[in-house]
Amino acid sequence: MSSAVNIGIIGAGTVGGGTASILLENADVIRRRTGFPVHLARVAEKDAKRLASLKLPKGVGTSDAAALIADPGVDIVVELVGGTGVARDFTLAAFAAGKHVVTANKALIAAHGEELFAAAASAGVQYRFEAAVGGGIPILRSLREGFTGDRILSLFGIINGTANYILTEMTDNGSSFDEVLAEAQKLGYAEADPTYDVEGIDTAHKLAILISLSFGGQVDVDDIYTEGITRVSPVDLAYAEAFGCKVKLLAIAKEVEGEIEARVHPTMVPDNQLIAQVDGVFNAVAVTGDRVGETLFYGRGAGAQATGSAVVGDIVDLARRVHGGKATQVPPMGFQQGERRPLVIRPMARIESLYYLHLRVVDRPGVLADIAGVFGRHRISIARVIQDSQASGKTVSLVVMTHRAVEQSVQDALQEIEKLDCVADPATLIRVEAEDV
Amino acid sequence: MSSAVNIGIIGAGTVGGGTASILLENADVIRRRTGFPVHLARVAEKDAKRLASLKLPKGVGTSDAAALIADPGVDIVVELVGGTGVARDFTLAAFAAGKHVVTANKALIAAHGEELFAAAASAGVQYRFEAAVGGGIPILRSLREGFTGDRILSLFGIINGTANYILTEMTDNGSSFDEVLAEAQKLGYAEADPTYDVEGIDTAHKLAILISLSFGGQVDVDDIYTEGITRVSPVDLAYAEAFGCKVKLLAIAKEVEGEIEARVHPTMVPDNQLIAQVDGVFNAVAVTGDRVGETLFYGRGAGAQATGSAVVGDIVDLARRVHGGKATQVPPMGFQQGERRPLVIRPMARIESLYYLHLRVVDRPGVLADIAGVFGRHRISIARVIQDSQASGKTVSLVVMTHRAVEQSVQDALQEIEKLDCVADPATLIRVEAEDV
Repeated sequence: MSSAVNIGIIGAGTVGGGTASILLENADVIRRRTGFPVHLARVAEKDAKRLASLKLPKGVGTSDAAALIADPGVDIVVELVGGTGVARDFTLAAFAAGKHVVTANKALIAAHGEELFAAAASAGVQYRFEAAVGGGIPILRSLREGFTGDRILSLFGIINGTANYILTEMTDNGSSFDEVLAEAQKLGYAEADPTYDVEGIDTAHKLAILISLSFGGQVDVDDIYTEGITRVSPVDLAYAEAFGCKVKLLAIAKEVEGEIEARVHPTMVPDNQLIAQVDGVFNAVAVTGDRVGETLFYGRGAGAQATGSAVVGDIVDLARRVHGGKATQVPPMGFQQGERRPLVIRPMARIESLYYLHLRVVDRPGVLADIAGVFGRHRISIARVIQDSQASGKTVSLVVMTHRAVEQSVQDALQEIEKLDCVADPATLIRVEAEDV
Repeated sequence: MSSAVNIGIIGAGTVGGGTASILLENADVIRRRTGFPVHLARVAEKDAKRLASLKLPKGVGTSDAAALIADPGVDIVVELVGGTGVARDFTLAAFAAGKHVVTANKALIAAHGEELFAAAASAGVQYRFEAAVGGGIPILRSLREGFTGDRILSLFGIINGTANYILTEMTDNGSSFDEVLAEAQKLGYAEADPTYDVEGIDTAHKLAILISLSFGGQVDVDDIYTEGITRVSPVDLAYAEAFGCKVKLLAIAKEVEGEIEARVHPTMVPDNQLIAQVDGVFNAVAVTGDRVGETLFYGRGAGAQATGSAVVGDIVDLARRVHGGKATQVPPMGFQQGERRPLVIRPMARIESLYYLHLRVVDRPGVLADIAGVFGRHRISIARVIQDSQASGKTVSLVVMTHRAVEQSVQDALQEIEKLDCVADPATLIRVEAEDV
């Protein structure tokens, strides 16, 4: 039950590095879930400097991808070199060597997906690519394994973080596309050549994958109408606001009378739709099924760790298969029964929160000072007070928002406050989940 | 490869009926995904009227649950009777008969989960319960199989549709808890005895499951601090608004210095957080992992079809195991290779949308009439016009929002409009995804 499954990563760029760090640093929590070690055996990278920067354990790094693929000590190959050239060669070689492959390469799947699926099937191995769409969001898994009882009716996606970052900044600051792009490039949110992102090409590649999974057929990326965001102007964003809308680069697919609409273009979406609230580098995919109805999946669409998280999710699935036996049974609560540990529940008295407190007090001088004094003695710091002047009767509302405080202190303070002559009725307490300011 | 896997459902209530209808009506799309039939063999229900209302194929309905469990023609048992009495007996009997079990029963798992997991493990079968939390949202699957590389840091859930409906209505209309509850009961959104929903007990049951899956240990429901929404007043909701917040009944779990905070209570959340925008009967769970970062899952938390969708997702997983062989390999694009069909992509000219059009026109009488005339001839109906008075230079902005129109007509109209003397520059066109009004 405990023999390791060995992982070989090709490519030590952003996602390769993130994936390696998760396998190394979270090995214990992964093992508690699988019941066996998922072991980072090899990382192949031609760029020696880049490889060195990962600080891998001795003997893991190599410059030879072909040797990694052929190595009988590697069970699963993770292709993270990107592009459609050597990435394809490596993938086919891994299949030929009888190995499952995990990737984040949407361009490769868009260009050669059908060939690769056929090669994997005839080799009796699997090809997984959760990280290719929506970064860390488990959207492909949900479409492939969650909504198996549904006919998918439509999907709408914000699936390019660069484009969404630019549109969000333009909306918030009224800046032009060119200004924001330059800023995004400086911050590392946009590539030196941003064409793939801002012209919607990357979005179309990802939409092609979502359409295949949703509607059960193949779509050529060239058949997807694709329009980028380069011509969106701050003026139009301001008018969108006047109409109660945001402009987003949406990937859209709908089944309409037996045909599929497949398009990528700047799209106005009413503010009251959740997808309009997805800002910055975040991604989201809204899926409507004939049974499940409307759903939405939200998370980080890029980045070493978020994308690495999705890669590791696929690795673990396949590692369970490679290991075989009982390991293929995912435990009901995610962790192996013997690895579940008693949880220490923090007593409520010790939690920390911001607090909303609504007191009814007599409207006379000195009341606020008395109450503030109690808070002070209990080391509760007040962030904001609303004293309501429109009170009816002899009491007024005194509403307090605290800074971060300990529950017990707040309860003690309230008990003391409720004993004051100037306070009528028990107070209302509502905890606030927000960043303290 | 094509022998059927047979499903037996116990309980023909809301979720049982929904599950049966999905298995019957979507049998074709399920088979295209699995490669074999997932066949509704039996439905056991004591209430003859209720059973008749499902209009099942001849021979499927029965009043005898024990016989269904024992029937060698049933491979997977779906327990949808609810409660912690006979539901437990049926589940244990099914395990003893060597059958996988699917359920939506959060109360049963909260009360007897550990016993049932142990029984399933010793019988070598699986117990699945995606539908127990968040209705149709594949949140348990994502935690169990998606985020396997992550340490979960925190989760926040709106996981009771009744409570969220009541708080949303109170916020939108300023009504009292009692008024909205009475209304919700009339609409069928709240039970005659709403205690479980409004006192947070149902939310705590579901939180216990989420905590187990996230933090790898067991939590007793009694250790979860639980406070319902019965004392939330319209006045406090109005003050929340003044602080830029909404009040939600949140299920909260966080790892803090090795301890777990586990609590259910009315909570103020800033409006700019996505979870604050989750309204009415919808559910959402926000999960933060150390690698994936912030994520959010949104969808219908209840209802026959949405909950049935989650039940069928679990059934299909287990059916693949029962069938065995190649069927256990989920195809890369979700559908069996031989079942993927050419998709007919609708030409862009034929799509329908609302359109935002921004024209720069000469500021003189009759311009709007000329332009409106062109739209009229192309049968494009105008929903709203903004004519900008603050124009600089000799042109002004004329911004038009159309009703639903055909792309080709809009393009034809624009071409004609751009030829008009009064129109400078090409128009800006942005498609609008919204309900037509």
